[in-house]
Amino acid sequence: MSMFKKTLIASAVMATLTSVSAMASESSTEDKYGHDIYGVIAVQVASRDYANQDNNSGVQVNNETRIGWRGYAKFDGLPEHTKFIWQIETGYVDPSFEGENGGGGYLGKRDTFIGFDSEKFGLVRVGRVLTPIYELVDWPASNPGLGDTWDWGGNIGGNNFNDRQSDTIRWDSKELWTGFTMDLAVGAGADRAGATASEEASSNYWHGAAVHQNVKYGEGNWIQFDLAYEMNYDTATYDADGKDIGNYWDNQTYLAGVQGGHGPVGYFAQYRIAEADDTLGSDEKENAYSTGLMYNFGADQKWQAKVGYTKTEDLKVNGAKQENTGDDTWSTQLMYKIDSNAVVYVRYRDVDAGESYAGRWKTDSFSEASTGIEYWF
Amino acid sequence: MSMFKKTLIASAVMATLTSVSAMASESSTEDKYGHDIYGVIAVQVASRDYANQDNNSGVQVNNETRIGWRGYAKFDGLPEHTKFIWQIETGYVDPSFEGENGGGGYLGKRDTFIGFDSEKFGLVRVGRVLTPIYELVDWPASNPGLGDTWDWGGNIGGNNFNDRQSDTIRWDSKELWTGFTMDLAVGAGADRAGATASEEASSNYWHGAAVHQNVKYGEGNWIQFDLAYEMNYDTATYDADGKDIGNYWDNQTYLAGVQGGHGPVGYFAQYRIAEADDTLGSDEKENAYSTGLMYNFGADQKWQAKVGYTKTEDLKVNGAKQENTGDDTWSTQLMYKIDSNAVVYVRYRDVDAGESYAGRWKTDSFSEASTGIEYWF
Amino acid sequence: MSMFKKTLIASAVMATLTSVSAMASESSTEDKYGHDIYGVIAVQVASRDYANQDNNSGVQVNNETRIGWRGYAKFDGLPEHTKFIWQIETGYVDPSFEGENGGGGYLGKRDTFIGFDSEKFGLVRVGRVLTPIYELVDWPASNPGLGDTWDWGGNIGGNNFNDRQSDTIRWDSKELWTGFTMDLAVGAGADRAGATASEEASSNYWHGAAVHQNVKYGEGNWIQFDLAYEMNYDTATYDADGKDIGNYWDNQTYLAGVQGGHGPVGYFAQYRIAEADDTLGSDEKENAYSTGLMYNFGADQKWQAKVGYTKTEDLKVNGAKQENTGDDTWSTQLMYKIDSNAVVYVRYRDVDAGESYAGRWKTDSFSEASTGIEYWF
Repeated sequence: MSMFKKTLIASAVMATLTSVSAMASESSTEDKYGHDIYGVIAVQVASRDYANQDNNSGVQVNNETRIGWRGYAKFDGLPEHTKFIWQIETGYVDPSFEGENGGGGYLGKRDTFIGFDSEKFGLVRVGRVLTPIYELVDWPASNPGLGDTWDWGGNIGGNNFNDRQSDTIRWDSKELWTGFTMDLAVGAGADRAGATASEEASSNYWHGAAVHQNVKYGEGNWIQFDLAYEMNYDTATYDADGKDIGNYWDNQTYLAGVQGGHGPVGYFAQYRIAEADDTLGSDEKENAYSTGLMYNFGADQKWQAKVGYTKTEDLKVNGAKQENTGDDTWSTQLMYKIDSNAVVYVRYRDVDAGESYAGRWKTDSFSEASTGIEYWF
Repeated sequence: MSMFKKTLIASAVMATLTSVSAMASESSTEDKYGHDIYGVIAVQVASRDYANQDNNSGVQVNNETRIGWRGYAKFDGLPEHTKFIWQIETGYVDPSFEGENGGGGYLGKRDTFIGFDSEKFGLVRVGRVLTPIYELVDWPASNPGLGDTWDWGGNIGGNNFNDRQSDTIRWDSKELWTGFTMDLAVGAGADRAGATASEEASSNYWHGAAVHQNVKYGEGNWIQFDLAYEMNYDTATYDADGKDIGNYWDNQTYLAGVQGGHGPVGYFAQYRIAEADDTLGSDEKENAYSTGLMYNFGADQKWQAKVGYTKTEDLKVNGAKQENTGDDTWSTQLMYKIDSNAVVYVRYRDVDAGESYAGRWKTDSFSEASTGIEYWF
Repeated sequence: MSMFKKTLIASAVMATLTSVSAMASESSTEDKYGHDIYGVIAVQVASRDYANQDNNSGVQVNNETRIGWRGYAKFDGLPEHTKFIWQIETGYVDPSFEGENGGGGYLGKRDTFIGFDSEKFGLVRVGRVLTPIYELVDWPASNPGLGDTWDWGGNIGGNNFNDRQSDTIRWDSKELWTGFTMDLAVGAGADRAGATASEEASSNYWHGAAVHQNVKYGEGNWIQFDLAYEMNYDTATYDADGKDIGNYWDNQTYLAGVQGGHGPVGYFAQYRIAEADDTLGSDEKENAYSTGLMYNFGADQKWQAKVGYTKTEDLKVNGAKQENTGDDTWSTQLMYKIDSNAVVYVRYRDVDAGESYAGRWKTDSFSEASTGIEYWF
């Protein structure tokens, strides 16, 4: 029923809990086995005003709360430095922008995997996890509220990157030298498992990687450089009735970014280059960038003002620029740390979606004022 | 596949756990944060005999068990008298009357919200909660087994009231004077979020309220008077193919009720007036009432006999009564308190559904014998 | 989207956790009430090569992890020897062979019931449980990886047996004499609850039973003989559009099996006879068997080599053998007990599916190499 292909990522603080550090926190216990519930309680009240689709306008409550269960086991048959880990996470418990009965709150909708966490060799996970490039697209560069164009926006054909993807094997390195880490992943794409009758579907795979160089300086200052790529092969094109029309895409997407903190100031900037070519000989290019600036202030720096801007440039098809197909979003947010594990915020943003190319799905332009709370445990 | 638009509400004791008192019980702990699993284990074996749709007749097991997770946090940034609360509840884990693979057991299907619970100002919740009028419709007046006509029965156009509704903000007052409390709520309706392409959908909102005056007298006797209303605006009419036909309803529904206990006797009675008018100029009215009588007996009054009767009167369209469109249900139940937190019961009821008006959905008439158990933790 | 009607049962060790013994372990606690989370973490990486449907070929990650919540209560109103039990289990959290967004991870998808567990009278469960014959079909005789033909394979009309079925009442006896136990169950079929408009649907019921004679001898050796049957009445036939075509099946299925362990050797063998006749006068027969041999070796016998073979013979229709409609699967597996509650394994199997009769659904032939881990808590 809903026109929204993806839900809003409202997260004011972080979009995923499945970090290595989150895992590591459990290893402090001395037990051989352990497991626990965890969660992010995240509710937003938003008022949207759409440019064309006024049926979507109005006030809604968006409950992006998700909980999960995770655990570890120090199996007898594993070396001392390695433990087995597992995680199961639900989807959003009530994503109102997907309609009254969204039903996304089943187990396994979000990051859900098993893995081996080694103090020597890093973390290997198998299952449904973020792809290396998407982890950067998502955080820091989709916040506050930049995802409608920066994440799932744009016009380019095929699949420029996955987000959280099942059928994935991913390795996150330990620190290889001071401040340097890398992630490698490979997986099957969405057209696998009988989604299409075409044999091409069985070659719908992807691989990706990211490297991170973190540098600390002065008193608590830091800067991090990020590079990432993802390649998707043989993504099918479906017509409006869901029929595979026999045209397959290869996508190559590259990202370079910087993020950091200097005293009370935080910042990020990312540039992304996406290329796609299909069986019929088309060649498409679409570049985009996302930037943000934060300023922490007040007693104990509990307040944070943040502005973000992202732009997707006009699509190029066989070298010809498609005028007015680009998108941009700007957003501003004021956040207050109401506790060590909770924030409240108000946000205003303006999503300006350009024209759609070849009838591909794209959000309508809208402006939104919202307020919300996030609490994690 | 199923012909049933809503599942049976079999609850012998109560239909919702999300009461203020349930929340309050957690505040006795001294911890700053807390969370826990809770649940109602409720299984019924029922044999139904349908008047016309014999394909639905027969014996089934109805597992209306639901569990949830809820917690609280006393954030540093909140005043001493207020704590943050949250709750996530699943749907019924196996509602057989929805077919073998009902799939309602996802998180967020039932009451799922965040809120602030203040000893001074009462409880404010945001998310998916019962509407004030529905809370009374549901309990005490739908039990035992009166809901098929009293709750989701009747013929009136539009939406006379919501049940548990997402996109809601609801305030439950503290006791304002001895025995007096009130609830206020406002929310978006089911046609929001792209359910229809019509701009009217963005004005599909509702508001509602309830007031309660409880009076205690003698030794453990009590009587409570309840008044409630709910108004729904711009509810779309869909044809059999789910297409918005461009006709929108405004509904006004009012309820007055009394409930109480006098020695071993308990009782309730509610009267409900529903009015609706649509864009095309139709004007509809439908009144209904529900009554029940309980008698507690035996050692420690562990046994309870209960009879209930509800009647929906004939629909009036533009002042003209539509003959034989009314419904009624009578039900009788014998319940035994097998423990302080569990009951078993047997029940017999007869649901007599009148004719449908303008092809609107309504249950077929049936009689049902059932037995079940409910245990809550 | 998926061509797979059922998910692979990858379980290397056991396919269900809902055994009487699992329940019994909770009774050791002295509390009056109790509940806990439990689970099987089971992930497999598999590469399949299909004979005809090459679109399904390739590598996938199959996350058959499921978790659940279960508890007990010693109600005041129950005799000392009996306690109330309950269980709620999710589906697989990410079954990749059902596609990227399988969504089976809701609560109540797998064994979900209430029951009474009596030290005198055995265990009675009501809800969604395995049928007696299916419990044997599933374990030991579907492992390793024999289910595609032995479990949900074959051609016979109607419904030769259910697997886990809602609307069921099942009794598992205590040991009636040394080594002897029995299970009885009765329930409603899948066509109940409005799945079809036919009145025949209301007589779509089944019943089944199993008896087990376990004999121990020597030092830790054992052998068990199993007999089981299941009868399904009035199962509807649906055409490709899901329309009930007015033809109903009665099925009778019988199983005889043996399983045991002698020193380092384990084994099982089962033979199954299935008969079906329909309203139109057709009479069908289909026999099948499944066999397996295990050898435990190495330090503490932590290694296990296993081979399995299953064959479904050609379907007979009105006495005439339908040539080349039979199926067979052979499989070999090497497993290592990495801990007392976890195994890792590698497996290779070859599923050879014969021709389909009358257009009934059947898997395509494929070969598969896989490796996986299972951990239970």
